[in-house]
Amino acid sequence: MTRGLSEMRAAIDAELEGWLSETLRGAGPIAESIRYAVLAKGKRIRPLLFLGSWEAAGGVAGPGVRNGACALHRVALGPELVHTYSLIHDDLPCMDDDDLRRGRPTVHVRYGERAAVMTGAALLPLAIRAVVGGAADLKLPDRVASRLVGVLTAAAGSDGMVGGQLLDLLAEKESVGFNTLARIHLGKTARLIAACCTMGGVAARAPEQTVGRLTRFGIAIGLAFQTVDDILDVTGFSTRMGKIGGRDEALGKATAPSVLGLDEARARAEELGREALGEVSPLAGADRLREIGRLVLERDR
Amino acid sequence: MTRGLSEMRAAIDAELEGWLSETLRGAGPIAESIRYAVLAKGKRIRPLLFLGSWEAAGGVAGPGVRNGACALHRVALGPELVHTYSLIHDDLPCMDDDDLRRGRPTVHVRYGERAAVMTGAALLPLAIRAVVGGAADLKLPDRVASRLVGVLTAAAGSDGMVGGQLLDLLAEKESVGFNTLARIHLGKTARLIAACCTMGGVAARAPEQTVGRLTRFGIAIGLAFQTVDDILDVTGFSTRMGKIGGRDEALGKATAPSVLGLDEARARAEELGREALGEVSPLAGADRLREIGRLVLERDR
Repeated sequence: MTRGLSEMRAAIDAELEGWLSETLRGAGPIAESIRYAVLAKGKRIRPLLFLGSWEAAGGVAGPGVRNGACALHRVALGPELVHTYSLIHDDLPCMDDDDLRRGRPTVHVRYGERAAVMTGAALLPLAIRAVVGGAADLKLPDRVASRLVGVLTAAAGSDGMVGGQLLDLLAEKESVGFNTLARIHLGKTARLIAACCTMGGVAARAPEQTVGRLTRFGIAIGLAFQTVDDILDVTGFSTRMGKIGGRDEALGKATAPSVLGLDEARARAEELGREALGEVSPLAGADRLREIGRLVLERDR
Repeated sequence: MTRGLSEMRAAIDAELEGWLSETLRGAGPIAESIRYAVLAKGKRIRPLLFLGSWEAAGGVAGPGVRNGACALHRVALGPELVHTYSLIHDDLPCMDDDDLRRGRPTVHVRYGERAAVMTGAALLPLAIRAVVGGAADLKLPDRVASRLVGVLTAAAGSDGMVGGQLLDLLAEKESVGFNTLARIHLGKTARLIAACCTMGGVAARAPEQTVGRLTRFGIAIGLAFQTVDDILDVTGFSTRMGKIGGRDEALGKATAPSVLGLDEARARAEELGREALGEVSPLAGADRLREIGRLVLERDR
């Protein structure tokens, strides 16, 4: 990772820590489990994609966009909070029943299952608050702020993440084809990742053509990301990711290697990666976004 | 219940059914459990409070406000969807572990625990979609639409419903005082009920003074509602509510009767009811809202 990306990630972490401390003042006991879940060391891929897309879309520094913690980073927290909420619920005993996440005990192991359900449920309202608050400080028009919230919540909902997670669970121990696999990957992963990229373009007030390119970049990179994730679970590199490897197979999940075979899955990940980078090649400021895209695809290899 | 209120409830149910059918087209298997949960026969108290508050705030028929199904009713679905989501999660085995709700098997009994967690999680994004879509059809300015979403999500989150539910669980089998009980009641119940009333005033574009009255009405009626709910759980009338009575005591919950005693709890409910009705007495169009308020307090007695 280049120095530029490390600094972006540090700025995201700083905003996350600062904003949560401020926002959760007075929230009572739920603040502790929220902080535990959200402040765990993460790759912050989704905020990075938002910020990279904003730059690629020609976003220019203005009110709230200064060095260090800023309103733009606050908007970037929205997708990260939604992502964290999905991790908490995914790990629950009634779901994937994982004990370890990001190298630490999962939220339900640490705080109990009931608190984990509620902690997850608190994160979507928090995500919306981050986006709305950040957009206001950026002095974005209400119409733009509404669109940012709409894109994020749609990606989280029944047409997106939650719908995809249910498809994923229904496919366990079933024999599924490529189309079903693609729908699962789109719903449970790529819709939220694409939302980050769309939001970057919308926040930069880019032309619709550019927003469309960013959305398609995000969908391709999101599908590639989940394909790589499936592959890593098989090849055992996933132990480095702070969770236990080989779980997908143990759970009988529909994955890229189980549906396509390992070689074909690798080829698909590479093809999707090329497709993604091709989408943003006409955008002048997309160097950093391309770097983030490669980071997403080349992790742990 | 008067004919007017029955008709309002029928219009809410019609909009709920029609809007869900339209919106969940293409959502895949999660649509079935969402419909099961949401279309269960409910009292629709929250949408009624929204509509009554809108009327009390001087809301006038305009675009989208015609007879029958209309955009105003769509906004009213927002709080109902958030409420339904809280019921699904409350009933989970790791929470209150209820098998029966509104006279039917709970969502996790019918569809399994994993689908129930996800069905609940899908409802907040749906709620936001209903509010944003309804506000757009009402031709409300984006600023007003954003405020409606903000009020609803804040009531659902860590400062509201979810935070209150956690306080509620932490108080189980503990000896708590009146202040803690009031915080639990405010968070888990009254914040969302007050949000309905606030939203009614905001959607009607009423002066802030009126919105403030409606919010205070909602908080008082919400606290009274939860107090009555606690009382009904003890006095056994709750079997008529379609769930099993006496559960609060079995779970060692902090309730109005356990903290205040039954007589004092009854007196508090009455006092809060009077306080609520007093708040809206200066509003010319509040007859229906008062009727809804009395319905909330006098149910099952």
